[in-house]
Amino acid sequence: MKLNIAVLPGDGVGPEVTNQAIKVLKAIALEFNHSFLFKEAPVGATAIDQHNNPLPDATLELCKSSDAILFGAIGHPKYDNNPSAKIRPEQGLLKLRKELGLYANIRPVKAYDTLLDKSPLKQHIIEGTDITIYRELTGGIYFGEKHLSEDGNTASDLCEYSKHEIERIAHLAFKSAQSRKRKVTLVDKANVLETSRLWRKVVTDLAKNYPDVTLDFLFVDNAAMQIILNPKQFDVILTENLFGDVISDEASVIGGSIGLLASASVGDKYAMFEPIHGSYPQATDKGIANPVASILSAAMLLEHFELHEEAELIKEGVEKSLKLNITTPDLNTTYDNVSTSKVGDFIADFI
Amino acid sequence: MKLNIAVLPGDGVGPEVTNQAIKVLKAIALEFNHSFLFKEAPVGATAIDQHNNPLPDATLELCKSSDAILFGAIGHPKYDNNPSAKIRPEQGLLKLRKELGLYANIRPVKAYDTLLDKSPLKQHIIEGTDITIYRELTGGIYFGEKHLSEDGNTASDLCEYSKHEIERIAHLAFKSAQSRKRKVTLVDKANVLETSRLWRKVVTDLAKNYPDVTLDFLFVDNAAMQIILNPKQFDVILTENLFGDVISDEASVIGGSIGLLASASVGDKYAMFEPIHGSYPQATDKGIANPVASILSAAMLLEHFELHEEAELIKEGVEKSLKLNITTPDLNTTYDNVSTSKVGDFIADFI
Ligand SMILES: CC(C)[C@H](C(=O)O)[C@@H](O)C(=O)O
Ligand SMILES: CC(C)[C@H](C(=O)O)[C@@H](O)C(=O)O
Repeated sequence: MKLNIAVLPGDGVGPEVTNQAIKVLKAIALEFNHSFLFKEAPVGATAIDQHNNPLPDATLELCKSSDAILFGAIGHPKYDNNPSAKIRPEQGLLKLRKELGLYANIRPVKAYDTLLDKSPLKQHIIEGTDITIYRELTGGIYFGEKHLSEDGNTASDLCEYSKHEIERIAHLAFKSAQSRKRKVTLVDKANVLETSRLWRKVVTDLAKNYPDVTLDFLFVDNAAMQIILNPKQFDVILTENLFGDVISDEASVIGGSIGLLASASVGDKYAMFEPIHGSYPQATDKGIANPVASILSAAMLLEHFELHEEAELIKEGVEKSLKLNITTPDLNTTYDNVSTSKVGDFIADFI
Repeated sequence: MKLNIAVLPGDGVGPEVTNQAIKVLKAIALEFNHSFLFKEAPVGATAIDQHNNPLPDATLELCKSSDAILFGAIGHPKYDNNPSAKIRPEQGLLKLRKELGLYANIRPVKAYDTLLDKSPLKQHIIEGTDITIYRELTGGIYFGEKHLSEDGNTASDLCEYSKHEIERIAHLAFKSAQSRKRKVTLVDKANVLETSRLWRKVVTDLAKNYPDVTLDFLFVDNAAMQIILNPKQFDVILTENLFGDVISDEASVIGGSIGLLASASVGDKYAMFEPIHGSYPQATDKGIANPVASILSAAMLLEHFELHEEAELIKEGVEKSLKLNITTPDLNTTYDNVSTSKVGDFIADFI
């Protein structure tokens, strides 16, 4: 197979972890006789520094003309604590999601047997956890109208959802559940929010098309508790943009390190793959960032193109590296932890 | 001291746990020669059933003419999954908060030494945790304009904040930090939301009046992770309404049971005290609901009136009951767990 892959390394540890994903994809190409062409473009703080624009037109064009996008991370502290900055790194990511119509963010959360002791949660709580989160990614309060009064004393954000926006991601979630444990949990705040009530109504109606899937509901406050108390009760979690942001970062504690969690952001035309961890600026260029999330994002990319055997091989390589303790310091606190690029080398060699 | 206390038991397990709090307050009155007068009124689903109104005028009047309010819980499943119901139990609670101007919801989260093994989190993670959450309670997306299009296909909720709304709760949070570990963490989503940027700006400015208190910031997604990874890093958490709802329910896992967590909702004129757990309808009238959260809410009520010795005695009674394992089944899975009312008896007798 021939694939043009746009590479957007972004900020902080983004470039170093993305490099490992590329390394692994190149090993796959070699082994399975595929041809993967990588083209790089700036995004986020890096793009602001270079072009005064967190998503330069050329970057967006590259994405649109590629088969898939491999994304690193964005964000830099120099922008975070400056709320009045007009140009900010995240705008690049948000605009990218919107422009490419990447409405579904898919985040698998798994407890790896070899890592059960790394989680802050007790082993019997997390053992066997296998959740996939479907987070809506191009709607809700992220993209609604924002307002700041002229005197700067009042601000507002509008959260909006349409039936269509809810249906398209809900279909994906139910289809995924059909090949899993056939359960979808809708997380919302229907006792308070009008948008949540719309979600509940639309998803309830749509569920009738999937009689083999059970649908249940959880208020987001309760969900935030249940995901820690008893993560095994979940199969597929479906939720809106902001709730998905919070719940999926929270759920990352189950795996023992956010450095393990990959994600796919898909729409009807484009697909982007990125680790869920952020730019982790303190770690930049120290060789301590865990590349596994980025490497597993590459595996999700392959799965997206039905290259299941290839994706499986990457996952095996990752599991082997974890088992042999060939891991970065977040997972390996002994003196013999290895660097970001050594983890990439190991997995590429394995392939 | 003479206190008129309005009692709003509400739904589900509300009445049974509230009864234990009253029992304990009566014991305190006897022991310390106070006069507490209790008057009861309906709220929530109970009030809908009786008066077709989740907050009857008489209930609101009673609250306004009392010195403090003891609240149980509200919510009933027959309303939750019926998003189109025009009258819903939560409206009673939300209206009460708004009408009484209860803008600050204060939720202490503590790891009890005797309960370290009950938490899903590992002991070394939670040991020594002592957090107070200040959640804004009368603003934000809870109270902003809601809209449902005529064809029912689009919905919206507006999140709004003013400088004034932010300042009044921020002052309370900083003052509380001054008598604690002198650290305030503002939880927001300033990289996406205009309202969060306003929070960051207003709180940063206001912090200058509290040079002895350190202020730091955390995005809500990261906070949801950090509170599980390392809860001990927090002292006072300050946040807006919806984030506070999620984060504080999540944080309840630290204590081992949501049945332990009390809260105070205060404004400039009124104050209300309630357990943070909900109405837990499945448990109604089974004698299995943990009354400790409601009893500790009564202790917060006493503290509000500077009755520190009295509040302390209640807390001692609670700790003793926990130590002796005189607890409901959520904390005590052996055959000799005791009923809701027996826990109340024990603590009242202790006093
Ligand atoms: C960087 C930020 C805007 C982004 C989000 O909130 O969506 C990130 O937290 C994520 O989850 O991908
Ligand atoms: C019942 C509900 C409206 C309420 C809220 O979301 O505020 C509850 O969850 C709480 O936290 O007191």
